[in-house]
Amino acid sequence: MTHPLFETHRARFEGAQAACRSRACWSPFPELPSKYPDSAAAQARGLAAFQAHLGTDAPRSFRLDQPGQIGELGEEVSPYTQAPLGIRYPQADPDVLFQAAEQAMDTWAAAPVDTRLGVLLEVVDVLYREHLFEVAQSVMHTAGQSANMAYAGSGVNALDRAIEALVYADQAMRSVAPTARWERRFGPSQIVLEKTYRLVPRGVAVCFSCASFPTWNAWPSMMASLATGNAVIVKPHPATVLPMAITVRVFRQVLQAAGFDPNLVTMALDSTQEPLGKLLVKHPKTAIVDFTGSVRFGQWVEQHAHPALCFTETAGCNTVVLESCTDLDAALRSLATTLCMFSAQMCTSPQNIYVPRQGVRTPQGPVPLEEVARRLADAVAALTGDPKKAAMILATIQSDQTLALLRQLQAEGARRGRVLLQPQPYAHPEFPQARTSTPLMLQVGTSERDLYGEERFGPVSFVIACEDAADALHQATTDVRQFGGLTAFLYSSDESYIARAEQAYARAGAQLTINLTGAMPLNFAAAYSDYHVTGLNPAGNASLTDLAFVAGRFRITQSRRPAAAAS
Amino acid sequence: MTHPLFETHRARFEGAQAACRSRACWSPFPELPSKYPDSAAAQARGLAAFQAHLGTDAPRSFRLDQPGQIGELGEEVSPYTQAPLGIRYPQADPDVLFQAAEQAMDTWAAAPVDTRLGVLLEVVDVLYREHLFEVAQSVMHTAGQSANMAYAGSGVNALDRAIEALVYADQAMRSVAPTARWERRFGPSQIVLEKTYRLVPRGVAVCFSCASFPTWNAWPSMMASLATGNAVIVKPHPATVLPMAITVRVFRQVLQAAGFDPNLVTMALDSTQEPLGKLLVKHPKTAIVDFTGSVRFGQWVEQHAHPALCFTETAGCNTVVLESCTDLDAALRSLATTLCMFSAQMCTSPQNIYVPRQGVRTPQGPVPLEEVARRLADAVAALTGDPKKAAMILATIQSDQTLALLRQLQAEGARRGRVLLQPQPYAHPEFPQARTSTPLMLQVGTSERDLYGEERFGPVSFVIACEDAADALHQATTDVRQFGGLTAFLYSSDESYIARAEQAYARAGAQLTINLTGAMPLNFAAAYSDYHVTGLNPAGNASLTDLAFVAGRFRITQSRRPAAAAS
Repeated sequence: MTHPLFETHRARFEGAQAACRSRACWSPFPELPSKYPDSAAAQARGLAAFQAHLGTDAPRSFRLDQPGQIGELGEEVSPYTQAPLGIRYPQADPDVLFQAAEQAMDTWAAAPVDTRLGVLLEVVDVLYREHLFEVAQSVMHTAGQSANMAYAGSGVNALDRAIEALVYADQAMRSVAPTARWERRFGPSQIVLEKTYRLVPRGVAVCFSCASFPTWNAWPSMMASLATGNAVIVKPHPATVLPMAITVRVFRQVLQAAGFDPNLVTMALDSTQEPLGKLLVKHPKTAIVDFTGSVRFGQWVEQHAHPALCFTETAGCNTVVLESCTDLDAALRSLATTLCMFSAQMCTSPQNIYVPRQGVRTPQGPVPLEEVARRLADAVAALTGDPKKAAMILATIQSDQTLALLRQLQAEGARRGRVLLQPQPYAHPEFPQARTSTPLMLQVGTSERDLYGEERFGPVSFVIACEDAADALHQATTDVRQFGGLTAFLYSSDESYIARAEQAYARAGAQLTINLTGAMPLNFAAAYSDYHVTGLNPAGNASLTDLAFVAGRFRITQSRRPAAAAS
Repeated sequence: MTHPLFETHRARFEGAQAACRSRACWSPFPELPSKYPDSAAAQARGLAAFQAHLGTDAPRSFRLDQPGQIGELGEEVSPYTQAPLGIRYPQADPDVLFQAAEQAMDTWAAAPVDTRLGVLLEVVDVLYREHLFEVAQSVMHTAGQSANMAYAGSGVNALDRAIEALVYADQAMRSVAPTARWERRFGPSQIVLEKTYRLVPRGVAVCFSCASFPTWNAWPSMMASLATGNAVIVKPHPATVLPMAITVRVFRQVLQAAGFDPNLVTMALDSTQEPLGKLLVKHPKTAIVDFTGSVRFGQWVEQHAHPALCFTETAGCNTVVLESCTDLDAALRSLATTLCMFSAQMCTSPQNIYVPRQGVRTPQGPVPLEEVARRLADAVAALTGDPKKAAMILATIQSDQTLALLRQLQAEGARRGRVLLQPQPYAHPEFPQARTSTPLMLQVGTSERDLYGEERFGPVSFVIACEDAADALHQATTDVRQFGGLTAFLYSSDESYIARAEQAYARAGAQLTINLTGAMPLNFAAAYSDYHVTGLNPAGNASLTDLAFVAGRFRITQSRRPAAAAS
């Protein structure tokens, strides 16, 4: 007898299993907000729910009903209004959370796999049916995404990645037989043993979520840990708490309604002034760490997580190689769109664009490097010149630090190369106070490697002149190997060059998109189909989603005893 | 078209796959040397091959034909003759080995999974058909095992674990689709992408093998790394090189015969005086570390392996709880056998035997603790009193250090508790110079925890008086949690006590054997059926064999591009 919640969601789960096998396009959710059932009403409800969280006049407490509260914290500021959200969240004593999590785990871990999957699929469903636009609004006003991206990238796509994690967790757990009968002769005696294999959770998982894209990594990480029987303590970035606070509350409600201890999921909030991250990673009860965030702290986590298992996704230098093109304008339009998408505040946004000094070959003859750079800058300018279009694609800048970085890089770029495009605020049509900037584009030579040889978080890109096509590929893949890289983009009409690039990027470990033009953002990563992060370079050690992402989160213990006497 | 070598071994591989699913008893190999085809001749050939390696009069060089040789090393001494083997192995420049390994990987990694599996199954077959008794002899005269254990535990059982690792590697790799067609509408355009997924090896693996049981862990580790496309550098313990040198040579020969670069498998030997272990673990090209050996160095490896992935099996306090019994004599006989097996120089040998102060309940009434301890010591003495029987079961002591430890523990035990059984050499009937000792048995209270609260490597065990049955279980599982533990043994006729013990040991992460009597050694672990090490306590982080043992050894990269225009 499987759990009724699993039966309720069985068709959806089986659809996801089939998609993971075929890796074809599939989702149980509509990709566009307008296709959501009774969309206008749902959006209005979501907005109202979001607004009800806000402490507009006086600080408002977010109720989480979790143990160990020792105070309240909250420092979120909307990138759209640049006003504080005024929400105060419970600040918890981590020791109490760990203890509560450990107590909660026994019953959860003892439940059949189907039961855990059913409950977690119900969480997905409740997030989708009851909280999607509330989450989207909260992502907008913390991470600063556009409404559409908040709905898709931080909403349905993130739910898809969550279901995908359940599929792999299930696959790993089902590879373990529950029982066996084992029979062998030892000298004079025939030994018959009954064996029982138990899946044992590793322990308490700590899940760090990041400021600019909180749910997309956190939801699948939480699902992977919970499906395999662990408890999760969520540690949101202090700038982007609300989406995760809503998440934690939904998990807790669904777990409790299903008869489990809600303390399987809690939230440990800290502040910019007094960060809690290192303490949580080194806590003696921490058994798993999932981390999404900065390269610097991510590397600290990887080095110090032991004995906890750790899964990281940080950032890197995503590269573009422009070697040759059948339709240069189409390629540059696609590139421009992707450079602008959410002001390049995505771990998949391209940054370093390598072009051979001799220019890009096209059917109409070679286009000189200078012209390629100018036309790309023009394409970006065209996309961002109209505030309404700009708002849709650029959205806002999550943090003031990014604006400071843009100023610094503009000055350095002017000194050491050429400024192709100057950043400037644009006036958001709905939110006049929004923190915005059009992209900064620089043209430099490979001698300025220290300038572009790390992730420069925000809307900044570099057109980099190389010796030739071979050098472009060499430079780009060296970036990936040295500084990390998640995505890579290639335009070439030369099949042998493409083959070399596929080899080189596979070895460097960046996911390569070749000759793509049209309306799809080049860096779009589809759940069930696109693997996200390879683990082969410094951009992170975990992949969404492969078996390695789930297989270590539980362990196998066994007991064996003589079988009751037979014949 | 699968590779001819895969076709040759397909039936064997499919048998192993079925066994891993059912976890029933299975092996393609005969468990007893006498059942080996044309056994007497094969054993004679194996002995001759072993003897041909020896430098009896003058040192003899072991030819390995691997690059980077900078000298020769060799310090092995037979525990049976206490004379040097006189074998000199190539000492290699590690940098050259790493470079050669990296060069060798590309072609290997590009080969289809079936090809790699076919070649590795051929390695298994060549080891079995041509080298099994040669390996067994070399294990005897380095590790000190008996001929039967060297044949089974270090021979066919280790080959079974090797095949098992291939089954799981295959399972993890086959969960990745090789290609996909992905189609979705984005605004006005229908995007159709062809996606290619590549399995990319993590890099060069370093495989440490241990002095007392070299092949049982090393063979599956090597197979797991090689099947997933990596190269392997083997680092044998300087006391036990020959079995691994033969192994490395066979791998190299089979790889080369199949058209691959033999430098996929090389050996990096060091000496006791100048160990190379830390350098290998921290080498910038090390991507995977498999370690079997001491707790102390194992913990160093776990802490310092990053960014390499690491898989460890070290040691722990294996515990026994004697609560109640239907047939106490049978239980004590089984325990005595297991305490003696290879002089308890196995990571699965029991050490700490917990007995309630009130004694052990039996159908004939409670048997007092003192009597249980005496009868157990008598059972051990009975097994080891006859040199011929003793030779079969105790074999030899691998290292002089173990004899020193026995002397020290005997003195301390006499002061702090009671010596139940004094160790003494026994005269090996075939090898009069053999380094031997009968077991030391001590009886102590729980106040002497510092004495037994770590692995005491060698034939030493402690009968420990506890408050009551609940305390026995508490003490035993606390040992496992604190000091590590692989196996555990329980005798109880109380089903509710058994259920509590199963829970407690599952949480502590020791594999539990309940109420087993008869001819099977209690700590026998069967490939395809018994998971070895849970990863839940300090005795190691890896399990033979689960998906987690293989899934991280390769990564997935992808490339995608617009499909050729359809309809």
